[in-house]
Amino acid sequence: MEHVKQKGVPQNQYTMCWLDYKRCEDEEYLKKVIPFISNIFILDNNYYFRNAALELKEAIKNIFGVEPNIQTTSYLDFHHGTLIGKLGNEVIEKFLEKEEKEQIGNEGFLIKVVATKTQNIILLVAKTESGIIYGTFELINRLRVKSNLSSLYIIENPKAPLRVINHWDNMDGSIERGYAGSSIFFSNNRVKRSLKRVRDYARLLASIGINGVVINNVNVRGKAIWLITPKYLPELSEIAETFRLYGIKLYISINFASPIYIGGLSTADPLDPDVFKWWQETVKTIYSYIPDFGGFLVKADSEFNPGPYVYGRSHADGANMLARTLLPYGGVVIWRAFVYNCLQDWRDTKTDRAKAAYENFKPLDGEFLDNVVLQIKYGPMDFQVREPVSPLFGGMEKTNQMIELQITQEYTGQQIHLCYLGTLWKEILEFDTYCKGKGSYIKRIVDGSLFGWKYCGFAGVSNIGSSINWTGHDLAQANLWTFGKLAWNPDRSVEDIAKEWILLTFGDDKKVVENILWMLLNSHRIYEKYTTPLGLGWMVNPGHHYGPNPEGYEYSKWGTYHRADTKAIGVDRTSKGTGYTLQYHPHWQKIFDDIEKCPENLLLFFHRVPYTYRLKSGKTLIQFMYDSHFEGAEEVDVLIQKWEELRGKIDEDIFNRVSERLKMQKEHAIEWRDVINTYFYRKTGIPDEKGRLIYP
Amino acid sequence: MEHVKQKGVPQNQYTMCWLDYKRCEDEEYLKKVIPFISNIFILDNNYYFRNAALELKEAIKNIFGVEPNIQTTSYLDFHHGTLIGKLGNEVIEKFLEKEEKEQIGNEGFLIKVVATKTQNIILLVAKTESGIIYGTFELINRLRVKSNLSSLYIIENPKAPLRVINHWDNMDGSIERGYAGSSIFFSNNRVKRSLKRVRDYARLLASIGINGVVINNVNVRGKAIWLITPKYLPELSEIAETFRLYGIKLYISINFASPIYIGGLSTADPLDPDVFKWWQETVKTIYSYIPDFGGFLVKADSEFNPGPYVYGRSHADGANMLARTLLPYGGVVIWRAFVYNCLQDWRDTKTDRAKAAYENFKPLDGEFLDNVVLQIKYGPMDFQVREPVSPLFGGMEKTNQMIELQITQEYTGQQIHLCYLGTLWKEILEFDTYCKGKGSYIKRIVDGSLFGWKYCGFAGVSNIGSSINWTGHDLAQANLWTFGKLAWNPDRSVEDIAKEWILLTFGDDKKVVENILWMLLNSHRIYEKYTTPLGLGWMVNPGHHYGPNPEGYEYSKWGTYHRADTKAIGVDRTSKGTGYTLQYHPHWQKIFDDIEKCPENLLLFFHRVPYTYRLKSGKTLIQFMYDSHFEGAEEVDVLIQKWEELRGKIDEDIFNRVSERLKMQKEHAIEWRDVINTYFYRKTGIPDEKGRLIYP
Repeated sequence: MEHVKQKGVPQNQYTMCWLDYKRCEDEEYLKKVIPFISNIFILDNNYYFRNAALELKEAIKNIFGVEPNIQTTSYLDFHHGTLIGKLGNEVIEKFLEKEEKEQIGNEGFLIKVVATKTQNIILLVAKTESGIIYGTFELINRLRVKSNLSSLYIIENPKAPLRVINHWDNMDGSIERGYAGSSIFFSNNRVKRSLKRVRDYARLLASIGINGVVINNVNVRGKAIWLITPKYLPELSEIAETFRLYGIKLYISINFASPIYIGGLSTADPLDPDVFKWWQETVKTIYSYIPDFGGFLVKADSEFNPGPYVYGRSHADGANMLARTLLPYGGVVIWRAFVYNCLQDWRDTKTDRAKAAYENFKPLDGEFLDNVVLQIKYGPMDFQVREPVSPLFGGMEKTNQMIELQITQEYTGQQIHLCYLGTLWKEILEFDTYCKGKGSYIKRIVDGSLFGWKYCGFAGVSNIGSSINWTGHDLAQANLWTFGKLAWNPDRSVEDIAKEWILLTFGDDKKVVENILWMLLNSHRIYEKYTTPLGLGWMVNPGHHYGPNPEGYEYSKWGTYHRADTKAIGVDRTSKGTGYTLQYHPHWQKIFDDIEKCPENLLLFFHRVPYTYRLKSGKTLIQFMYDSHFEGAEEVDVLIQKWEELRGKIDEDIFNRVSERLKMQKEHAIEWRDVINTYFYRKTGIPDEKGRLIYP
Repeated sequence: MEHVKQKGVPQNQYTMCWLDYKRCEDEEYLKKVIPFISNIFILDNNYYFRNAALELKEAIKNIFGVEPNIQTTSYLDFHHGTLIGKLGNEVIEKFLEKEEKEQIGNEGFLIKVVATKTQNIILLVAKTESGIIYGTFELINRLRVKSNLSSLYIIENPKAPLRVINHWDNMDGSIERGYAGSSIFFSNNRVKRSLKRVRDYARLLASIGINGVVINNVNVRGKAIWLITPKYLPELSEIAETFRLYGIKLYISINFASPIYIGGLSTADPLDPDVFKWWQETVKTIYSYIPDFGGFLVKADSEFNPGPYVYGRSHADGANMLARTLLPYGGVVIWRAFVYNCLQDWRDTKTDRAKAAYENFKPLDGEFLDNVVLQIKYGPMDFQVREPVSPLFGGMEKTNQMIELQITQEYTGQQIHLCYLGTLWKEILEFDTYCKGKGSYIKRIVDGSLFGWKYCGFAGVSNIGSSINWTGHDLAQANLWTFGKLAWNPDRSVEDIAKEWILLTFGDDKKVVENILWMLLNSHRIYEKYTTPLGLGWMVNPGHHYGPNPEGYEYSKWGTYHRADTKAIGVDRTSKGTGYTLQYHPHWQKIFDDIEKCPENLLLFFHRVPYTYRLKSGKTLIQFMYDSHFEGAEEVDVLIQKWEELRGKIDEDIFNRVSERLKMQKEHAIEWRDVINTYFYRKTGIPDEKGRLIYP
């Protein structure tokens, strides 16, 4: 396995992030561990088991400097080593209690240590090959952080059934909203020939429990429309095979009008029998190439993509038609709820884009087939630095739902700014919708437990590309890591998740852990402060969405307005305004409706507020704006200082790359501070109480 | 000659604009004319004469339905016909007075009619082949408007020596700031094979007296850098040959760093002997393919293009080095003065982009070689709907100057809005700089007469492309026409020029002439009213520059700010402000400095003005803004009505195309009106005195 790296020296032009194994210098631990790891026994001699064993072997070799033997066995003829096997196997089952066996779910695993005078055995048990590979990486990571083997005992099952990465990769190699190089899958309108990097990507994803990858952009245009045809399926099947080894299914984004573009039909009407037949044939062909194909992701009737509305059909009509073709093979349709009027007139104050998803989909609750999942962006707008949680979650009880999070930092600093998203995501997941009474958390909705759904889960828009460190900003790797870990178990604390990432990526130096943890956990808060606090959003440059432009979207067609004048700013979305709050459970409606009770970090999302309005702190809104921007930009210095303290403790390349980005972040934070402050000063004429420099 | 069209029926997918010959229905005129045109005699049997004669023959055939004979002759053996010959030829000179001969300049021509009882002869005489082709088109046009032959007598000489079209065509076929299809020269990084359209373009240009074409974008990147090499010269020489037939020289835009990109040198330092040698060789090669090559157009040290500043050299160093290589062949260097800091910090209120060209070039006056011409945009910024005239004109007495006008409507409606630019250009040309006392008009500077320059003139950024009507908006053809006619003779009135265009393009129906003339002459005034009046400028969407965005450039790096706050708007560019007015002659400095004397249509260019300031009309600034926008958008209805009145009197295709654009113009004028009014209302809180609807 050529992918394993030595001591942080980059091989093959890219790092392996948290799988960049470093040699364990702790001789004592090595001594303790050796008996358990010098042999690897696998009970099934198949491709998947051998692959898992090789992963383990290479890791052990790199971490401990010993090269374990891999042996296939069918009975217990040894006393020392790691035993990998499936539930049901006699050799394994001898070591397990009845309750233990029952606790291991489809994708779960058990790691259990048998340490007696005569036996030093690590058991890795799972029900499926997926569980085996997840367990393998978990075991490797436990060994890397020097877990005490005598007390090592893990039973893990993922909470959510679908844990999917969405790639917005285009076939020309570009990535929509990508900030880390070009696509690792496509270039020049072709599927890339080398699968080496795809395989390493699969390893990274398996190590965080991801089980699905949508390989292409949801905006499906040009050549990408043809991905579902034999023109590209032979190559896609090779990618699928690579992913399969790591428990990951391949999905494809489709163009709803494919029957017209590819099939030569005159319509893509979902109720037209020829259309259905065309899709049926297409799906059959896909499964002939990719027997475990995951399904389709569909952006329909959204931002100039075709959809069922074109034919006067509902989204249920559209999704169900596709779902019927996939059902015999176990495939799903993931249908995006990101449907709104993207040709709004800014003069129209009645239409409120925030209401669109709910208005389009709520009436269809109960109409979708069982293998349709609605993929809903976390907030009602579009991945702003802060939005309220979409009221569609829990608003539809009879419809499978996935939450869509954006790992790539479109509006959150584009991997130039450090902006760890775990803290934001955790807040979202812990939001109690009250839809089924107190405790109806988002995390319980999307993991399926609240309504007993089979298909549901997490979708994350990828932040990786062909750059040396996968994510542009080295610390942005933490966002991918955290997405996977939260999708696996949204109950875990982000502190814990982030800390584990630091330990695996940078080692256990106390200062390193402490400083990077502070940086991660505070970075979103800081970014929010110097950009658009209070739920304001959208003050970015149109198109590329980087950098401040306070009125960049003010007169556009995108439905994203703050309507600031000399007196006030914000849109009244209460029940007396656009009525958006009425889409929430009464518990929240009352809170959001009331300017005094509304969470302050969402104040300007829900209310139109005079600049002289006093916040709970006693500050006026305008003074809060000034303070927030001055303080936020100032706090970037703390990030820089915390990083600077780690000089010499971190791989030099990584240290320098991050330093450079932090320097840019500081510059750009100052730009944000000054533009937004000047904007508000010019708009209001109200000076800063503290007399700091606001450019006139 | 396959290019001649019948009665407005499009052949070959495009119209021929003002050269779209229609049959003359006036039998009486035909009778009078026939003796003069049924024979064409040429005194030089060369390619150029034959081509001119064929142009005339085809025109006569199409206009009068008779097919004249073309005969080469060397003595006068006829009594009826058109005689085409050069000065110096005995046969011709018999008919000419001494003074007449002296009056015909290098590119000029004489048309004279000899009508006696025995002779019916039209004489077309010139000193050069260029004069012959210009005269041919003039004669054709005179016949088309049924000029009285008995009184026909024309001596014409162009005022300015250089009358050049700049194409911002890229080699991929796109056109920077092009709004009429793709390039007629390039596609797919190749020179197009078919020269048919190039030839028709040459005909159009010759008919308006253009004598130079810069074939590629001033931003020279990628493959375009190689246009000066044998990789492309064989094909360019064919284009040059086509142009040559019509008196037009080919020019190429170059990348100043070509010695590095192409030559493999490590520097492009203009004082490096190897660099000079490389350019010398390159120029030699170019002339071996194109013996009458015009020269180079250079955008250096401007908007990310390389230039002499990179090496600590002056623009004179850079231009002169190139000029020396071109001098032996009679070529010129056209050097753009569009040099400014495009990475300005918006917080920096000292730097004023308006001052940049003068600051960069004024100190170099007298340092440029004789075959260097400075190409200066008409205003100090960048082709806004209204700017003051650049103080560089007349500011440099010892430097050849060309004025750069933008025929393509980048900031003036992108050929969706009707915006005839002749009226604006005429105002510019008639501006009296006072640089050499009263009467030092721009037109006298750029035609060379004021300072006795050899090289000087007009550069116009092309508005044509591969669209059916060349210019997208059919009426935008008038801008190309007018550019050529003003470059030929800037003393002519635009009313006269526009009217001639209408007669040749649409015929002499009284209503047609009257209405289109009104539309043209009022269109810039109307566009200015509903967009950015008072010299405001720059309130456009960044990047593509279409449509309103009041703060689109407010925090950018481009140096284009209005700094509007709740009280006032505009930049103080007076001697007490940025000092820009100090670049003008004291006569203008005093006027521009004084808010009461400053021409009102430039008020916000020169002054920072409170919204409550009262204009000469007694209106406040803010009320003027509201009125201007309401009225301007309203007046688009008059344009529509004037056009609608011509239904049935205009070729249906053209009528419909223009109607459609006028409809879009109305919609977009309303957008401008509402966005700008709302912007100012939100900024000031001051309501419209007349209570019209301003969206809050």
